[in-house]
Amino acid sequence: MTEVISKASKVKAAAKKLALATTSEKNEALTAIADALNESRLEILKANAEDVKNAREKGVRESLVDRLKLTDKRIDSMINACHEVSKLKDPVGEVINSWVEKELRVAQIRVPLGAIGMIYESRPNVTLDATILALKAGNSVLLRGGSDAIRSNLAIAKAIKGGLSNSSLPETSVEIIEDTDRKNVQEMLNLDNYLSLIIPRGGAGLIKFVVENSSVPVLETGVGNCHIFVDETANIEKSIEIIDNAKTQRPGTCNAVETVLVHKNIAQKLLPALARRLNSKGVEIRGCETTRKFIDAKAASEEDWATEYLDLILAIKVVNSLDEAIYHIQKYSTGHSEAILTENYSNARAFTTTIDAAAVYVNASTRFTDGEQFGFGGEIGISTQKLHARGPVGLRELTTYKYIVLGNYKVRD
Amino acid sequence: MTEVISKASKVKAAAKKLALATTSEKNEALTAIADALNESRLEILKANAEDVKNAREKGVRESLVDRLKLTDKRIDSMINACHEVSKLKDPVGEVINSWVEKELRVAQIRVPLGAIGMIYESRPNVTLDATILALKAGNSVLLRGGSDAIRSNLAIAKAIKGGLSNSSLPETSVEIIEDTDRKNVQEMLNLDNYLSLIIPRGGAGLIKFVVENSSVPVLETGVGNCHIFVDETANIEKSIEIIDNAKTQRPGTCNAVETVLVHKNIAQKLLPALARRLNSKGVEIRGCETTRKFIDAKAASEEDWATEYLDLILAIKVVNSLDEAIYHIQKYSTGHSEAILTENYSNARAFTTTIDAAAVYVNASTRFTDGEQFGFGGEIGISTQKLHARGPVGLRELTTYKYIVLGNYKVRD
Repeated sequence: MTEVISKASKVKAAAKKLALATTSEKNEALTAIADALNESRLEILKANAEDVKNAREKGVRESLVDRLKLTDKRIDSMINACHEVSKLKDPVGEVINSWVEKELRVAQIRVPLGAIGMIYESRPNVTLDATILALKAGNSVLLRGGSDAIRSNLAIAKAIKGGLSNSSLPETSVEIIEDTDRKNVQEMLNLDNYLSLIIPRGGAGLIKFVVENSSVPVLETGVGNCHIFVDETANIEKSIEIIDNAKTQRPGTCNAVETVLVHKNIAQKLLPALARRLNSKGVEIRGCETTRKFIDAKAASEEDWATEYLDLILAIKVVNSLDEAIYHIQKYSTGHSEAILTENYSNARAFTTTIDAAAVYVNASTRFTDGEQFGFGGEIGISTQKLHARGPVGLRELTTYKYIVLGNYKVRD
Repeated sequence: MTEVISKASKVKAAAKKLALATTSEKNEALTAIADALNESRLEILKANAEDVKNAREKGVRESLVDRLKLTDKRIDSMINACHEVSKLKDPVGEVINSWVEKELRVAQIRVPLGAIGMIYESRPNVTLDATILALKAGNSVLLRGGSDAIRSNLAIAKAIKGGLSNSSLPETSVEIIEDTDRKNVQEMLNLDNYLSLIIPRGGAGLIKFVVENSSVPVLETGVGNCHIFVDETANIEKSIEIIDNAKTQRPGTCNAVETVLVHKNIAQKLLPALARRLNSKGVEIRGCETTRKFIDAKAASEEDWATEYLDLILAIKVVNSLDEAIYHIQKYSTGHSEAILTENYSNARAFTTTIDAAAVYVNASTRFTDGEQFGFGGEIGISTQKLHARGPVGLRELTTYKYIVLGNYKVRD
């Protein structure tokens, strides 16, 4: 039996017990995990220092090394996350819907998904974040992190399992694949008899590979080529605040804006002031031909409209109408987050009705597409697929439902 | 461009228009389809007669020929289905949830999935049933039926498109693949840029192939190895009625019971009477060793516990306790429908809590797991997967949601 199958069997068996765990049992386990992380602090930091050293020796970019690096402060926030998740409302047992039909009382009840596979790349905090959300929703997890962070991941997983062993939940609720050979990813993707779901977290290449090769259902957390359309009636000063926020507050995130579309009737007033603000924040602008009549900017190519920069770069296009803006977004959108800034009611309505994305905004920053901001208390990623969950994936999205049907010895006619 | 890609492009484009269609536009289209079916009656029957003739010449079993065969009565019920679906409540636009967070009004709104791929085998009525449910939920469909029914499917699709051309919905809302070469199935499974979902309908082999090879998300409508556990406190006469109903009312369906588990303390009273009833209905019983002490029955093998007979055969096992019954079901269940018959409250509670299936029953027949019986008005199949939809897949299950977020030029802190 391979390591993957052996650990998949364990989490599958643990899932049956977890599904019956009470809210207080789960919360006590989260507290025990927090305590174990605190006690394992030195061990985790030591393992992480080795990962960081190896990454630097391999010539990994410093921005990626930063994602990998753990500090006392980051461990504090992992510990804090355990306490925060324990405060969240337990989604399991919620009556989603209930009715009487054919003399039967039908109730649609929220239940855990089962065993969840997580396949992720360099950030070691995913080991904890994914685990505690999955556990609170009553699911077990099989973790498969990238080789760059393997020592950190193993140290964190050891602490988690230590915490679980001080709780009433099975220690096997969480298992981590130690061997980082890539063949293990493919092996996990074939485990439809063990896993209810696989969530890939990482670059576009990893996600594409998982989607194309998995027989286990996949929850795709994806790419965000997000747009803001500034309609001719928008408030100019407030529009500049929103675009600045959506581009510069955290440019490396999937909900940052990548292209701004500007109605031609507002371009002359908006663009120079917008360019001044963005230049002062170090943003490089790539503009269409019309944009470049109003401001200094590099010429945008066809490729720019399709690019998720994840960086301090913004593409700007002047459009003739709302329809042209909608057409552009429909063509290039990845279905993540799209916004219109306008004072016109009918345009707001047309935009929110027509645009097909996880989150569609009127007069707000695309940066709000986030489990925390939506009030979910946490998230495992932002789904850009339409099946099962769309937008932030929080506790509820990590559950399924079953029908419980209570009858009086009724038979079907 | 291949036939598959060309038609996938058409349904993808149509999906954008369908998503904006009003309820009355959709209902008028359903009525137009009903009228077109009525007018194309002779053409459809003629095409079907050829399919039936070919099938008989190929030596196809008469029970399968019967599934293939259309009659005036069956066309009447297809026409009736159009009218019934037009009466169902439109799921699109429903506010699933709405709240205020960070001064933003967040609303989770039900919207169509987009373009849906249907891959199915011999029943030509799927061409219509799948199409009208998908259309009512605002989705377009790409149909790929089996070669046995291809002439019938093409004739029905032609009538549907004729109906659509008399409506305000795009005629390209429905496209059917004419070339029945198997390579077209694989080609559809790669169309994750065109299709939001693929639903396979047919035998276990087809479903397994689709699950293993699709990069498009799949909704698995699956196998039902359903159980009924008769607890020691169950009412014997009523239990016999339920088992009879669940086994014989329509034995070829996925929600028919395949194994009955009997508590040892009720076996002596229940089994002889149950056997008399089932024998009178022509049911073959395969029993465990203990069962065969009470009644005449073939010996059940390990394989019997895992078999979905879809026939007038029933496996019976005597168990020592509720726990043993639960253990057996957890081992052999396909997660479809499971029932307990009991007068004991705590046992009913333990069974419904522990058993992990789409539908879990107390004192009712497993035959109720059905969109019609649950009050959904129709269904496209019974999902046995946990992602997206579980149990009957009706109009709601053919939708997704988006978040519409209304702000006052708010930025993220």
